[in-house]
Amino acid sequence: MNDFAHLKTPAFLVDRNIVEQNCARMREKALASDVFFRPHVKTHKTLEIARMQHGGALGPITVSTLAEGEFFAEAGFEDITYAVPIAPGKLHQAAALAAKIERFNILIDSEPALRAIEDKKVVFDVFLKVDCGYHRAGVDPDRPESVRLAQAIAQSKYVRFQGLLTHAGHSYNAKTIDEIRRVALQETAALTRFRTKLAPNLIRSVGSTPTASVVDRFEDADEVRPGNYVFYDAFQSTIGSCRREDCAVSVLATVVGSYPERRQAIIDAGALALSKDLGPDQIDPKFGYGIVCDLDLRPLPIKLIAVSQEHGKLHAIDPPPVGTRLRIIPNHSCLTSAMYDGYHVIERGSVVDEWRPVRGW
Amino acid sequence: MNDFAHLKTPAFLVDRNIVEQNCARMREKALASDVFFRPHVKTHKTLEIARMQHGGALGPITVSTLAEGEFFAEAGFEDITYAVPIAPGKLHQAAALAAKIERFNILIDSEPALRAIEDKKVVFDVFLKVDCGYHRAGVDPDRPESVRLAQAIAQSKYVRFQGLLTHAGHSYNAKTIDEIRRVALQETAALTRFRTKLAPNLIRSVGSTPTASVVDRFEDADEVRPGNYVFYDAFQSTIGSCRREDCAVSVLATVVGSYPERRQAIIDAGALALSKDLGPDQIDPKFGYGIVCDLDLRPLPIKLIAVSQEHGKLHAIDPPPVGTRLRIIPNHSCLTSAMYDGYHVIERGSVVDEWRPVRGW
Repeated sequence: MNDFAHLKTPAFLVDRNIVEQNCARMREKALASDVFFRPHVKTHKTLEIARMQHGGALGPITVSTLAEGEFFAEAGFEDITYAVPIAPGKLHQAAALAAKIERFNILIDSEPALRAIEDKKVVFDVFLKVDCGYHRAGVDPDRPESVRLAQAIAQSKYVRFQGLLTHAGHSYNAKTIDEIRRVALQETAALTRFRTKLAPNLIRSVGSTPTASVVDRFEDADEVRPGNYVFYDAFQSTIGSCRREDCAVSVLATVVGSYPERRQAIIDAGALALSKDLGPDQIDPKFGYGIVCDLDLRPLPIKLIAVSQEHGKLHAIDPPPVGTRLRIIPNHSCLTSAMYDGYHVIERGSVVDEWRPVRGW
Repeated sequence: MNDFAHLKTPAFLVDRNIVEQNCARMREKALASDVFFRPHVKTHKTLEIARMQHGGALGPITVSTLAEGEFFAEAGFEDITYAVPIAPGKLHQAAALAAKIERFNILIDSEPALRAIEDKKVVFDVFLKVDCGYHRAGVDPDRPESVRLAQAIAQSKYVRFQGLLTHAGHSYNAKTIDEIRRVALQETAALTRFRTKLAPNLIRSVGSTPTASVVDRFEDADEVRPGNYVFYDAFQSTIGSCRREDCAVSVLATVVGSYPERRQAIIDAGALALSKDLGPDQIDPKFGYGIVCDLDLRPLPIKLIAVSQEHGKLHAIDPPPVGTRLRIIPNHSCLTSAMYDGYHVIERGSVVDEWRPVRGW
């Protein structure tokens, strides 16, 4: 039984019980593994879920923007890591934020960023970003230049060198759970190997939802920072990070056009309601823009083959008629949630609350 | 000379002079062609540019959401077409909006939508959506069922049947200006052909930025509704709708990581700052996520090869160092602008204003 009739579409639905389960499972794994738990809040950007990630407490968190940092600091979160290499031009804002809370860690991976900190003459808590194979940001742990940069950071009087941080984003390219497991080993090994060339007290901070989800316990790491696991999504359930029933979010949409003669229909959820993420195209190049489900979140034999600004285009042998309501499990919940100013929180099919994420940078 | 130093990145920059030129050019073409001009506001969603589209007046506009409709109605726009087939559940909201302004046209393309209007027992101004070859929404003008639906609409006592509306979205698949021109002919021919089976007073409303941009004058149509032309973007300039110097918007970003050893760099503008539109991949499958330029908007030999939530990944033989500021011409300005709560308006390199778009649905 669902009680969505009053909701205007498109709407972003968050199932509170599933989020709670996802949060509890990851938190318990971290506790059982005796690692420091610093979950990422970038996927949901809400105070409600950040507290849930810590079982109700205002625990340590990871953010992806300074806007998130300021929002969560304002709400009482006292220990925050900003996990994108900082632009030199943002150090002033970061220093102001750091002055307000107990701990604000920033991330660097270059000599110019270190010099910018020193020019500022403000002491920062710093992690060095390490590339464990994703090849996005981070220093190569096997290059001598990386050791020299780490030593320069350790010796800087404007730095409290906290540790090494990596993100195994290449786990998203996996096709099987075994592949994700191999990336998980790579992720921790990269930091441990690099740390042996440096100091044994440096924190090894790891985190990606696929790797954190498939390991039985966290080993060979001191801190974990998964984020997407609170919601999961079509991508994660397809590569094997979670089961489909662990996906906590969906976009409620209405069929506004139906064309049986060309086996197509149109919904009122397009690129602005879903984002334009291609999903796990390494597994299925024609995955589509989300998993189309009925109101009880049972997948339907319908593909979401295209999205334009406000239209989603469905392909189905028997397309649903105009007025039909559907739920779409988004490909990438981090991007989809960011399209909404408010989330409709549901519990056993009823809307029980509305949560508002922080936006911008 | 640019004066962006104080702007936090990522930031969305709108060049006022270019927007004014783009607006004037399209408006003058419509006036010279003696067609009714009802530009779309979905690309920018701001009052400032909607007025510019009409040379300062509060003229007729097209919207893509009811939220836009209400926002522009509130600001004094009295003649609005909501150009997405309406969900039956939104008729109540549409009726309330229609009661507030002189004219609020809605769009339908199905028998169930007509029945929903009749069940409401409120008279609506209605356009019938026609498919001119894009195969997204709309009835096939060559099917007898489409004529029957048009006749039923014409005969309904709850409808003032205004006309036929089409969107030549398949012009975006073009590779050359000649291809766009062929689509433009298809677009107008579809409505004219269909109208001969109906009534000669029905308005033929056409509009897509590629077709509206390449024709010398509007012929064989009564109303035109382009929208993207106010900003244009990397996509439009690549398929030939505009020159690159007609692109009025860019995302200002900062290099936050630079890795010459792998010929890559990272900027602080990712999927949330740019959107994840692939661009004109029919012309270049590896187009990247936007055109990377210097601060004067001169294209650089750098490709934006990947975007994740807050990171953009650059490939360059000689990647720019950390701290470098770049401007990215977005692939699809409609999607990119929607990521920002405010636009920084620039004039000859200086920030002169901030405009705020309406959001949501």
